Amino acid sequence: MDTIINPERLMADLRALAGFGRHLTGVHRPTFTEQDMEARKWLMGRMRAAGLQTSIDGIGNVMGRSPRQGPRILVGSHSDSQNHAGWLDGAMGVVFGLEIARSFLEHGLDGSVDCAVWADEEAHFASFLGSRSAVGSLDHDDIVAARNATTGQKLTEALAAAGLLGLPREQIDPAAYIGYLEAHIEQGPKLDDSGLRLGVVTGIVGIHQYRITLCGERNHAGTTSMARRRDASRALVALAAGIDAFLVANAGPDTVWTIGNIRVEPGQDSIIPDLAEVSLQLREVDPALLARLNEAIHMLVSGADPRCPASIEITECTAPALMHPGIRDALSAAAELTCPGGWTDMPSGAGHDAQIFANVMPSGMLFTPSIGGISHHWTEDTAEADIILGCATLADACRRLILSALTKRDTT
Amino acid sequence: MDTIINPERLMADLRALAGFGRHLTGVHRPTFTEQDMEARKWLMGRMRAAGLQTSIDGIGNVMGRSPRQGPRILVGSHSDSQNHAGWLDGAMGVVFGLEIARSFLEHGLDGSVDCAVWADEEAHFASFLGSRSAVGSLDHDDIVAARNATTGQKLTEALAAAGLLGLPREQIDPAAYIGYLEAHIEQGPKLDDSGLRLGVVTGIVGIHQYRITLCGERNHAGTTSMARRRDASRALVALAAGIDAFLVANAGPDTVWTIGNIRVEPGQDSIIPDLAEVSLQLREVDPALLARLNEAIHMLVSGADPRCPASIEITECTAPALMHPGIRDALSAAAELTCPGGWTDMPSGAGHDAQIFANVMPSGMLFTPSIGGISHHWTEDTAEADIILGCATLADACRRLILSALTKRDTT
Repeated sequence: MDTIINPERLMADLRALAGFGRHLTGVHRPTFTEQDMEARKWLMGRMRAAGLQTSIDGIGNVMGRSPRQGPRILVGSHSDSQNHAGWLDGAMGVVFGLEIARSFLEHGLDGSVDCAVWADEEAHFASFLGSRSAVGSLDHDDIVAARNATTGQKLTEALAAAGLLGLPREQIDPAAYIGYLEAHIEQGPKLDDSGLRLGVVTGIVGIHQYRITLCGERNHAGTTSMARRRDASRALVALAAGIDAFLVANAGPDTVWTIGNIRVEPGQDSIIPDLAEVSLQLREVDPALLARLNEAIHMLVSGADPRCPASIEITECTAPALMHPGIRDALSAAAELTCPGGWTDMPSGAGHDAQIFANVMPSGMLFTPSIGGISHHWTEDTAEADIILGCATLADACRRLILSALTKRDTT
Repeated sequence: MDTIINPERLMADLRALAGFGRHLTGVHRPTFTEQDMEARKWLMGRMRAAGLQTSIDGIGNVMGRSPRQGPRILVGSHSDSQNHAGWLDGAMGVVFGLEIARSFLEHGLDGSVDCAVWADEEAHFASFLGSRSAVGSLDHDDIVAARNATTGQKLTEALAAAGLLGLPREQIDPAAYIGYLEAHIEQGPKLDDSGLRLGVVTGIVGIHQYRITLCGERNHAGTTSMARRRDASRALVALAAGIDAFLVANAGPDTVWTIGNIRVEPGQDSIIPDLAEVSLQLREVDPALLARLNEAIHMLVSGADPRCPASIEITECTAPALMHPGIRDALSAAAELTCPGGWTDMPSGAGHDAQIFANVMPSGMLFTPSIGGISHHWTEDTAEADIILGCATLADACRRLILSALTKRDTT
């Protein structure tokens, strides 16, 4: 394979990064812990050694900027991990950014590649903390309010302990970049199941997280006739089964939905429940389909058993983030070059920093296979050859985008 | 109304008993607490004052025995209450027993009526603790193992604190009695809704308490396709809706069932659950119908979605307890005398000490209306006229049973 990247150096850096917070064959590197901060500092050292200009800002985002001029691309991901999780989730995309920026400098190629290491994509404190800060959509109030989901520690305390509190937060200038590129493990089994080696992401799904609540009447489970009772849990089971059947019949081929939790009050064998609550999550990449399904779910809830009034609340809502056609084209062309017939278009069912950047600049993503579809677990892995293929493909896409920008500039 | 009982004395004693552990218009008299023990001692005093021979045994059961000879009837209920509950649940039946035994002595009537005050019908420590002890179906091991459901206190410690530990436990000799009679508030709305004033109980429902568990596979809620996922909570919703629909179509007119609780693990929005559990309770008085429904529920569980293997466990099982025809007849005749056309036959949807005695001797129950169907709450009540009517009717049934026994004895 003809590539500008150095596969041995790439793998060595990826393995070295996995040494920070090592847990079995994975890592435990929650955001702003000692192991996370050491990893960020080590990455800055590797960037400086490559000739990049480095910085870390008040939310922990690390940048490695190319000193060169010309069309500029931003390549990044996150270095924090879920608790006791895998070595590649985030880390792979970060090291791809480092390796591509480094290779561009090393080979004196046209244009410039900056690499970025975002903070807390894994939402220990808040979803997409670093990337939201970088695009200017994270308020100071959000920072003051945020607490660690596991430990309860305040974000401001964690930032202070990490030596970050009071540093300025740096915003990305979208106009300075052709676009944002991010590589990531798929985190699902689609590529691995089908024997494909690369996925060019069409878009990142929108997520609707619903809380549906039904109110009944608490009563004696033995002496209240069926006709008279208002059983919130029976009504919930009927409503949830109805919504599920509707989605089976009407969702798209890539729509997924999950009943993550059900809660019943008071939850005792011999008491008819007066409250039942279900958490329903819906993910779909097509904004129009997502809107139609959302409307139908609301209608099903409002048409539910009137003896147990039901209400629905959207507790979390992210819109689908479509990847930019020009960047998808560059990634597809690169994939067809490095891996003819061995790649596919696919939506991302998981959230990524790229969905934040897609709001402000052209963005694209490339997936590598997750062996067995496993992620968020220390056994998470991708074959070494596929990691190298992914980095070479992303590097080729960067070259294509820069060449295209240079060509455009020359012709205008 | 021509009756042997003294309505003013009945109501005065009932109100005095409600003074022990008074809570708003109800009582808080958990078994073996100070207020429960004071109530038992006060009841013994009232029994002695009436000329009855009293005892309290090693499980807290209080007996007031008639010194007279002749056919003997046992009338009783429990004096402990649920937490912060009503003034009549148990207490009414206890004072009926006291008043009827007292009236029989006072009027020098043929035969003898003993009254009993059972301990812990409300299962603070164990279901039907006192009545099971009285019929010999409570083992020493059960006592050693039992703990208070609210406080966690060991039963043995509670007995020691109440001064009962080490006292002998007294067993009832079923052969010594014509039968056991118990009056109780209905605890449901059937009588109150229909304007009837008395219910002659046909039987006490059998209860099957099921725990149905489904196993799925924990996975990422975004990246796992619908085809590949094994979602325990979706499978549970489908199965529970199927069982509910089956019961709607096939249960009897008095069958009741309750989905008391649903539990999902790990219960997080973005994780496909690998475990879902539902608590289903079924109550039915007809043993054959209960058996058929039980069989069908087992079949529905074994036929559920094979991707999420389901298992079913019966965590509690009581058989229906049919009331004795002879005692039902006496109660019906008494009711038709005291309240012509104003009473009905009905099953008991709640459990009662009478179901324990029905295993060893002819037993019967009489219900008074629960205003608004309310019980297990401090607002629980029955109209004073209905309380008096209930006691007079139960007294008349006792007279009929004793007269019938005397007649039988004379003719043999």
